[in-house]
Amino acid sequence: MSHRTHIEVIFVLALFVAGAFAQRPHPSLMLTASEAKGIKEALGRTPLLDTAFQRATRVVEAAVTRPISVPKPVDASGPVHQRHKENYLEMQQAGVLFAITGDERYARFVRDMLLEYAKLWPTLRKHPEAGVESYGRLFWQSLNETVWLVHATQAYDCVHPWLSMKDRSTIEQKLIRPMAEYFVAEHASVVDRTHNHGAWMATAVGMAGYVLGDTGLSNKALYGTKLDRKGGYLAQLDQLFSPDGYYTEGAYYARYALMPFVGFAQVIENNEPSLKIFEHRGGLVRKAVHATLQLTYTNGAFIPINDAMKEKTFLSAELILATNTVFRHGGEDPGLLWVVQQQGEVMLNGAGLAVAEAMRDAKRIVPFPYASIELRDGGDGTQGGLGMLRYGGVEDQSLLLMKYTSHGLSHGHFDKLGILYYNQGREILQDYGAARFLNVETKYGGRYLPENKTWAKQTVAHNTVVVDERSHFDGKEPVSSRHHGMRHFFRAVDAGVQSMSATVSDVASGVQMQRTLLMIDDRRFAKPLVVDILRVVADKEHQYDLPFYYFGQIVNTNVKYTAHGAKRTALGVANGYQHLWVEADGPANGPAQVTLLNGRRYYSLTTAADSSTHVYFTRLGANDPSFNLRSEPGLLFRRRAQETVFATTLEPHGEFDPIKEFSIGLHPTIIGVRVLASDDEGTVVELTGRDGSRWHVMVTNRPSDPSAEHVMKVEGTTYRWKGDVEVERSGE
Amino acid sequence: MSHRTHIEVIFVLALFVAGAFAQRPHPSLMLTASEAKGIKEALGRTPLLDTAFQRATRVVEAAVTRPISVPKPVDASGPVHQRHKENYLEMQQAGVLFAITGDERYARFVRDMLLEYAKLWPTLRKHPEAGVESYGRLFWQSLNETVWLVHATQAYDCVHPWLSMKDRSTIEQKLIRPMAEYFVAEHASVVDRTHNHGAWMATAVGMAGYVLGDTGLSNKALYGTKLDRKGGYLAQLDQLFSPDGYYTEGAYYARYALMPFVGFAQVIENNEPSLKIFEHRGGLVRKAVHATLQLTYTNGAFIPINDAMKEKTFLSAELILATNTVFRHGGEDPGLLWVVQQQGEVMLNGAGLAVAEAMRDAKRIVPFPYASIELRDGGDGTQGGLGMLRYGGVEDQSLLLMKYTSHGLSHGHFDKLGILYYNQGREILQDYGAARFLNVETKYGGRYLPENKTWAKQTVAHNTVVVDERSHFDGKEPVSSRHHGMRHFFRAVDAGVQSMSATVSDVASGVQMQRTLLMIDDRRFAKPLVVDILRVVADKEHQYDLPFYYFGQIVNTNVKYTAHGAKRTALGVANGYQHLWVEADGPANGPAQVTLLNGRRYYSLTTAADSSTHVYFTRLGANDPSFNLRSEPGLLFRRRAQETVFATTLEPHGEFDPIKEFSIGLHPTIIGVRVLASDDEGTVVELTGRDGSRWHVMVTNRPSDPSAEHVMKVEGTTYRWKGDVEVERSGE
Repeated sequence: MSHRTHIEVIFVLALFVAGAFAQRPHPSLMLTASEAKGIKEALGRTPLLDTAFQRATRVVEAAVTRPISVPKPVDASGPVHQRHKENYLEMQQAGVLFAITGDERYARFVRDMLLEYAKLWPTLRKHPEAGVESYGRLFWQSLNETVWLVHATQAYDCVHPWLSMKDRSTIEQKLIRPMAEYFVAEHASVVDRTHNHGAWMATAVGMAGYVLGDTGLSNKALYGTKLDRKGGYLAQLDQLFSPDGYYTEGAYYARYALMPFVGFAQVIENNEPSLKIFEHRGGLVRKAVHATLQLTYTNGAFIPINDAMKEKTFLSAELILATNTVFRHGGEDPGLLWVVQQQGEVMLNGAGLAVAEAMRDAKRIVPFPYASIELRDGGDGTQGGLGMLRYGGVEDQSLLLMKYTSHGLSHGHFDKLGILYYNQGREILQDYGAARFLNVETKYGGRYLPENKTWAKQTVAHNTVVVDERSHFDGKEPVSSRHHGMRHFFRAVDAGVQSMSATVSDVASGVQMQRTLLMIDDRRFAKPLVVDILRVVADKEHQYDLPFYYFGQIVNTNVKYTAHGAKRTALGVANGYQHLWVEADGPANGPAQVTLLNGRRYYSLTTAADSSTHVYFTRLGANDPSFNLRSEPGLLFRRRAQETVFATTLEPHGEFDPIKEFSIGLHPTIIGVRVLASDDEGTVVELTGRDGSRWHVMVTNRPSDPSAEHVMKVEGTTYRWKGDVEVERSGE
Repeated sequence: MSHRTHIEVIFVLALFVAGAFAQRPHPSLMLTASEAKGIKEALGRTPLLDTAFQRATRVVEAAVTRPISVPKPVDASGPVHQRHKENYLEMQQAGVLFAITGDERYARFVRDMLLEYAKLWPTLRKHPEAGVESYGRLFWQSLNETVWLVHATQAYDCVHPWLSMKDRSTIEQKLIRPMAEYFVAEHASVVDRTHNHGAWMATAVGMAGYVLGDTGLSNKALYGTKLDRKGGYLAQLDQLFSPDGYYTEGAYYARYALMPFVGFAQVIENNEPSLKIFEHRGGLVRKAVHATLQLTYTNGAFIPINDAMKEKTFLSAELILATNTVFRHGGEDPGLLWVVQQQGEVMLNGAGLAVAEAMRDAKRIVPFPYASIELRDGGDGTQGGLGMLRYGGVEDQSLLLMKYTSHGLSHGHFDKLGILYYNQGREILQDYGAARFLNVETKYGGRYLPENKTWAKQTVAHNTVVVDERSHFDGKEPVSSRHHGMRHFFRAVDAGVQSMSATVSDVASGVQMQRTLLMIDDRRFAKPLVVDILRVVADKEHQYDLPFYYFGQIVNTNVKYTAHGAKRTALGVANGYQHLWVEADGPANGPAQVTLLNGRRYYSLTTAADSSTHVYFTRLGANDPSFNLRSEPGLLFRRRAQETVFATTLEPHGEFDPIKEFSIGLHPTIIGVRVLASDDEGTVVELTGRDGSRWHVMVTNRPSDPSAEHVMKVEGTTYRWKGDVEVERSGE
């Protein structure tokens, strides 16, 4: 716990020096006066800064010519709601432009608008569209209201030096202070809650505190409303992020959380530099941003585990703030500039200036250092994690990911040991993400759709084993929240054979699962071969289903299926199964192989099987009366057993070029996968190549021990290996 | 016929001067000696040329280090077939590089390979995998063999000056001459056939003739094997291309045909400049290339009418040859450079040199002049045509296209008056194109799939009316080939209201159709509104189905449908209907509206209807036992009537931004579409806007006459308009 010591000392001190920095300079929240001066000087010779400045100028110039509109709140997502959102964005940018240019039109715009709000806000009570919890006054939910204040305090901070004492007093006493105090008083539980809403509110209260020079407020933001450090920003930072910077809700919400977490860190740095916030927990803020970027694929898309909109990429505003800030306060990592280059935008503050200057002066941009890494979950890093194996440069990277995290709060999905696979710049094995059309009012008001619960969160919507057609932990969040996956081992040191393995217990009563994934780079494969060994052990017989949701068109299979061409029915009736059409099905007759064409490459999935494995070819969309789901294909392997191993290879191969008109390498190298043995000692899987090559993949089922010697006898042959996993090749 | 006079005079003369140019310089087919010199000089300071040179060098350097392999023919698409394909490509490029650099290694490679072929070819008889017609010896079909000769003659032409008399004699007497004579003797019907295979063979024979200095052969290529000008290159050029340059099979095969047609034109220009081939038919070759480029969307994709692979774009090798050649021989049109810029490659001949120099010297590149145009079909331009209305620049162009061409030979589809619509750089209303996985051996050998006939060619696979669930002309090519659509009118002069209208008779016995399309640019619409008025008149009652195949996700509809969520059946049993799942269906209750989300924009389709119209929400994929079809959605409006008008608007609107997280303009402006009247005089359709605006679209059903006055009385209101079509707006 040594990394906390510094903060704790400061914490104790801080309580005694409240008020000490009441006479502070403005602006000093996200942007300081000297940074504004630096930006002004850099303009005209710093391209990214110029772009950002011109963009902001366009927005603000349009805004200052319109009459100011601060309407009475009426709706939850309609035009009035939208107006208040735009107002805070315009105010904040106008404030920044004033700080840079000194153009009084901008200052007047901010002043006039803030004074309008200072008239309106005190008259408001609970929003007419408020729900049961966490309501706001200006907005239907307090979340939007905190975001409003985060922006409004910045606008005020920027124009503060220009304002009359009277206007300052009005804005502070009628608007900023009462709003901040309202949050602390009426929503204390939010400020103290370990959740991204809590971080937003703490940030809003803290920024109000700093801009007012009120350490009482800023301390509540930092240490919780009871000043006991059990709530507030620092507690949230400690509990929501693991020591590796992994945010417990997953990448999509990490992105959202970075805004208050990183933004407020910048504000703290500008206002209480003695807290050394960027050094907190060994540079946790920087780690959080890097972890979130590691949780993107090379096309910038966030890995869509848990609730996630797939369209989101690292081009989003939150990541611009995040990369800029940690570039400046985290050692100016050149890999971040690759992300900045694609964002094409910077913040208008000191961090943005630093980034824009670095970009201007960069001789060449190196790609973001995507790596094979494990990110542990949980405040202390003991709640499982997320493993990623990568291979290849950013132009054609293979990424294999396994999720063995904790549940992920209210946005978690029930997919322990779920996997995803990317290649060729695109998704190959997908996670559906969330069922939602964000902001599309006719789609359930833009909220999460009913199908998010009935499909997207269910286990069968993911590439992992479903037991008896029921989701993990029976789809009960409180139960799932008490469990998490566990790393078995993670080995990415040898690029030739990268591997990771994880376990989870009791996804159904008495059922234990262990999944081991390898990425094997071998001259026999054009791109690394994926090997997936999923062992399930239970105290009685169950039905096990392992689905794979792929993108692509089936071009070949050895499964003798029956196609349901004229009439089609759903695979099941509940837990997500009701949404899957069965397009075809049939028993395997030996290792089942399906070859897909996706883009310019073929992918063959080969799974060890005999006739006791039934293969379903599925398509999403059954029982979807409102056309809420995407029509996407899947494969599902089903068998009944007490104990079983699903052993599968996924091989990218060949090239299909429809423009130059050729196709090569349509047939994969791997033609057979067989589980030779599996017991408490280990599992041995044999892969057979077209040319007679054989690979034996031997993985321990004992606790991880790199020095342990393992021996298994199978059909008269003895297999020996040392450590957790070994791959042995024989034949040509 | 005045444009033919010149050629005909030359034709008569040519027959008498055979042999006159036997002593000709080499190379002079696609590349001349002086051009090769020019390229050598331009290298190192002409970027596109450098790229092309380096690319060719990489290919050839790899080739010259491998042992030459000229295997005995055995397969139709396997490694031997592939070897012979690569041989001709490598030879041709090696020849060109020798002509430029004088590096003898390249010449030796060509010589040695040609001598190997000169040994092999005379021993060959019909290919072991030959089919019934148009077989080859080296390849299973003669088409490949002609392409081989087209390349081999170029290779020979380039190394000719370097070869010994003996080797020249061997190559000419054992290989080039016998192969050309084999084509003329054994495949005379192909040389004389009006088809792209004929053009390839004529080109091969002609190039052999020129390289051998044998005017007998080159004349047969130009004027047909009987020298009667009823077959051969010129007859093919005259019959397959309309006066507007439209190639009768459609854009996808136009692309393929341009290779021999444009390539051989270049060869003729180099060898018989007196023919003035690039001035033939008013510059037909140039027109053909421009027409083919007009038949691409701004993303470069060819409009996929008839059999077409959608992946094909103007980046293909044929279009590099075509744009380069007509840039040089057609007035150096700067719009072509926009295409060249995207191709990023040029030919290594005089045309490529001219283009590369123009690119190097261009101050700025203007987009290709995409336009609203009609392209007439048929050698004399009287076989209907294809209308395209366009709006907006290349970054976000609206393109509305209607097909009223002739059948399009063996690759034609049965969709008279079918439409396509593009917007936002993507397909919105699609044509399925062909059902084929080109070169994918496990997909029916890479040939056209059975579903090409059972689905892709059928009328119901297109956005046009199907009568009684039977394809146009009952799906019979000979019958369809006797019919074609007819222009009613085409008016693109006024960008505010662009319109086109066409008719077709007897798609079913006694059924007449007229379809009128408008693109209305009006400040009430973010992007032009599409109006589609399809009138069907028959001598008795029929069932009429109008499908629309869209891309996007349904986000709203006013149709009260029944979803078939748990069990699904096909819409019909034959003529393509057997491939359509019914996802939902229900009667309309007033104008039927469906709003889609596609990319960053909404699209609303609103069709005049009452409860007598039944709406089907379909998805492709029923009765597709081999997963050959793409799973894609559609809408189908069905009604029974003797006479009816399908009146539909398609409105692009709003903006959806999942990264910045907003959605605006989810609801369209048009809320109602009503057919007020339709008779022999005209059709009046009323569109109602959300704000009370009304548009009356009045279109004549009489023969086109821009000066005719039309009067229709409807429910006490008199509608008057002058000319073919008028749009009148009233209200706010």
